[in-house]
Amino acid sequence: MIQTKAFCYFDHNATTPVCKEVLEALPELAQAWGNPSSIHWGGRQPKNILRDARKAVADAVGASTLEIVFTSGGSEANNTVIKGLFDYYQTAQFLTPEQRRRTHYMCSAVEHPAVIKAMEHLKSLGARVDFIPVNRRGEIDMAFYESHLSEETALVSVMFANNETGTLFPIKQMAEIAHKKGALFHTDAVQAFGKVPVNLHELGVDFASFSGHKFYSVKGSGFLYSRKGSNFSSLINGGGQERHRRGGTENTLGIGALGVVAKRVALIPEKAEQMAKLRDHMEARILSEIEEVTITAGESPRLSNTSSLVLKGVDGETMLMSLDIKGYAVSTGAACSSGNPEPSPVLLAMGLTREEAQNSLRVSIGWETTLEQVNAFVEALKVVVARLRSLQNDEGDSCHV
Amino acid sequence: MIQTKAFCYFDHNATTPVCKEVLEALPELAQAWGNPSSIHWGGRQPKNILRDARKAVADAVGASTLEIVFTSGGSEANNTVIKGLFDYYQTAQFLTPEQRRRTHYMCSAVEHPAVIKAMEHLKSLGARVDFIPVNRRGEIDMAFYESHLSEETALVSVMFANNETGTLFPIKQMAEIAHKKGALFHTDAVQAFGKVPVNLHELGVDFASFSGHKFYSVKGSGFLYSRKGSNFSSLINGGGQERHRRGGTENTLGIGALGVVAKRVALIPEKAEQMAKLRDHMEARILSEIEEVTITAGESPRLSNTSSLVLKGVDGETMLMSLDIKGYAVSTGAACSSGNPEPSPVLLAMGLTREEAQNSLRVSIGWETTLEQVNAFVEALKVVVARLRSLQNDEGDSCHV
Repeated sequence: MIQTKAFCYFDHNATTPVCKEVLEALPELAQAWGNPSSIHWGGRQPKNILRDARKAVADAVGASTLEIVFTSGGSEANNTVIKGLFDYYQTAQFLTPEQRRRTHYMCSAVEHPAVIKAMEHLKSLGARVDFIPVNRRGEIDMAFYESHLSEETALVSVMFANNETGTLFPIKQMAEIAHKKGALFHTDAVQAFGKVPVNLHELGVDFASFSGHKFYSVKGSGFLYSRKGSNFSSLINGGGQERHRRGGTENTLGIGALGVVAKRVALIPEKAEQMAKLRDHMEARILSEIEEVTITAGESPRLSNTSSLVLKGVDGETMLMSLDIKGYAVSTGAACSSGNPEPSPVLLAMGLTREEAQNSLRVSIGWETTLEQVNAFVEALKVVVARLRSLQNDEGDSCHV
Repeated sequence: MIQTKAFCYFDHNATTPVCKEVLEALPELAQAWGNPSSIHWGGRQPKNILRDARKAVADAVGASTLEIVFTSGGSEANNTVIKGLFDYYQTAQFLTPEQRRRTHYMCSAVEHPAVIKAMEHLKSLGARVDFIPVNRRGEIDMAFYESHLSEETALVSVMFANNETGTLFPIKQMAEIAHKKGALFHTDAVQAFGKVPVNLHELGVDFASFSGHKFYSVKGSGFLYSRKGSNFSSLINGGGQERHRRGGTENTLGIGALGVVAKRVALIPEKAEQMAKLRDHMEARILSEIEEVTITAGESPRLSNTSSLVLKGVDGETMLMSLDIKGYAVSTGAACSSGNPEPSPVLLAMGLTREEAQNSLRVSIGWETTLEQVNAFVEALKVVVARLRSLQNDEGDSCHV
């Protein structure tokens, strides 16, 4: 087959290519097939892999090794904290009356579905849940947060960075506020890992979720940070793995691969700067060369790799498919809701109109993205947008050329 | 380093070596790094991997593709069914009064900790749970089962084959009995996969759990069979993956590897026969050449690869370590409770004394085990047992030479 496509990947918030370092480590990790719980020779190498990866991961996020619980990914980590804390407050013996009173949960209105749906599930189990509004600049409603937070709040869950707009939330400040009321604080840091330096002890959160495949590792692995002294019921009961916090034979391959990428965090500041330059260049070109484009939450602190565009009058899904034909991979929202004809709930929650949300495109670049790719993408986008707008003109639908 | 050890692996019930076919497939699976939910080019190859693996896995266990829910392993599958059904009966709308009444759960007393602990957790949430006794021949107490089963029973969970003794349970018959009372039936088939042919539609169970790493694939992947029409709440909420039954970006590497081993099920009858010959030869030699040895549940139907020995007067853990020094990997019980000084709860539940359970050794062979390895193992075991018994004699503890 003659390769005529560009195959340029601009969807790093959906997932990332597996890096060379992980690809090289995989055969050796797969050969260490023993059960880490075995006390004979078969268990030794896998046990070492777990130990080394735990150290690397803890170091990478400013935590200590006992605070790391390996999971099958970010969604499991999110569900573990939210459902596990609710369950703990329902079933644990020796709770204080003050703990038993805590049946109120909060999260931002723009969380990943793994958080939103877990919170909605708690509601069906009898918990009281509040979703903290976010405005179209991406700013979280701190007045709502402070006024709804109370001595009854068990947990607040606010993402480190939004997956669709890249918006960064004031996690440290919000965790401090939660702690003043005795509430615990969780941050879904899946989109932050590999894009901004994360230091959990400095942030002061109680729980944080991470995923390997958003940081150039394989799918099916991630971890939960659980601050020393934090309790929750296991989502997966079983053997005594992960100090009884997560049952199931450890995924040594995925965990070992996490250890490999965790050692690359030192590169983050440099890579983040490099991505910022490319992203800013891309946005500058798009804003100057395509008419009627806005950048959602572009004026707020955000990840340096993410760009959430509204291209007036052009359907996002159609743009995505037109760009795909040319070899450019972008998305209209979270990958996990792809194919869903509804516009992005995150953008709607931020106050965009249905039309604006439907005219949105998420562009997320990565560590290996080049200036040439960015420029080629802008050219392709210009062509696609012009064509789609002219088609609409022909149909008399709208008139944005 | 000079390799002086045998490195003979006789612990296939703990985990299995990753087979050549999977090792060869891994690089290509890792290169298909796209998010299967992406609708651009990046999602196509991983989506195909999922589709092919789902077909292979469904075919391998006599199910249809829509009945397969990929999980991070057997423990997650077990927890999903048990907690998910309890939760469903608590939270689902439009339940019949007959369904709402079902708050009784049953499992055998010799289940894997992932089942036992999930059941104990339901108890803490208010469910009524009965553990069906098993005798020392490995037979389940059918009278207890039938007399405790009622119109209030939501779910019965009995393993296909026990992980420590290999005992096979009458699943088809037990599922039929459960269905007569309107209860659902789950079988933890983790130890059966790859050791005996499994046909779920024929068995008539509602749910079944499987793990990849017990069948020569990588750790961190498995699946849940959920019969068409069966409902349960998701353990992991999130995106719409697995038809909304299991959130989280799919572990394409682990799932693709499952697809590879699933295609090998045709070899099971031949491999099972081969293992039976070796295991029977081993047991015959051990029984004739070592004094005071019994085989737990040896007279009952069991997996052809498993042997649960009681070597009177010899501490299992000490035997394990002595054999390990010679390069032979065996275990004293489930790997996931290794290091636990308590004797195996499974053997105690079967009615073995604490001393018998402490003198137990589990030997589980695999598809690649050879006659030479088995004979060498018997010789090593003879030496180890003789030495340990003589040491004890010297200490005046007991007198089994």
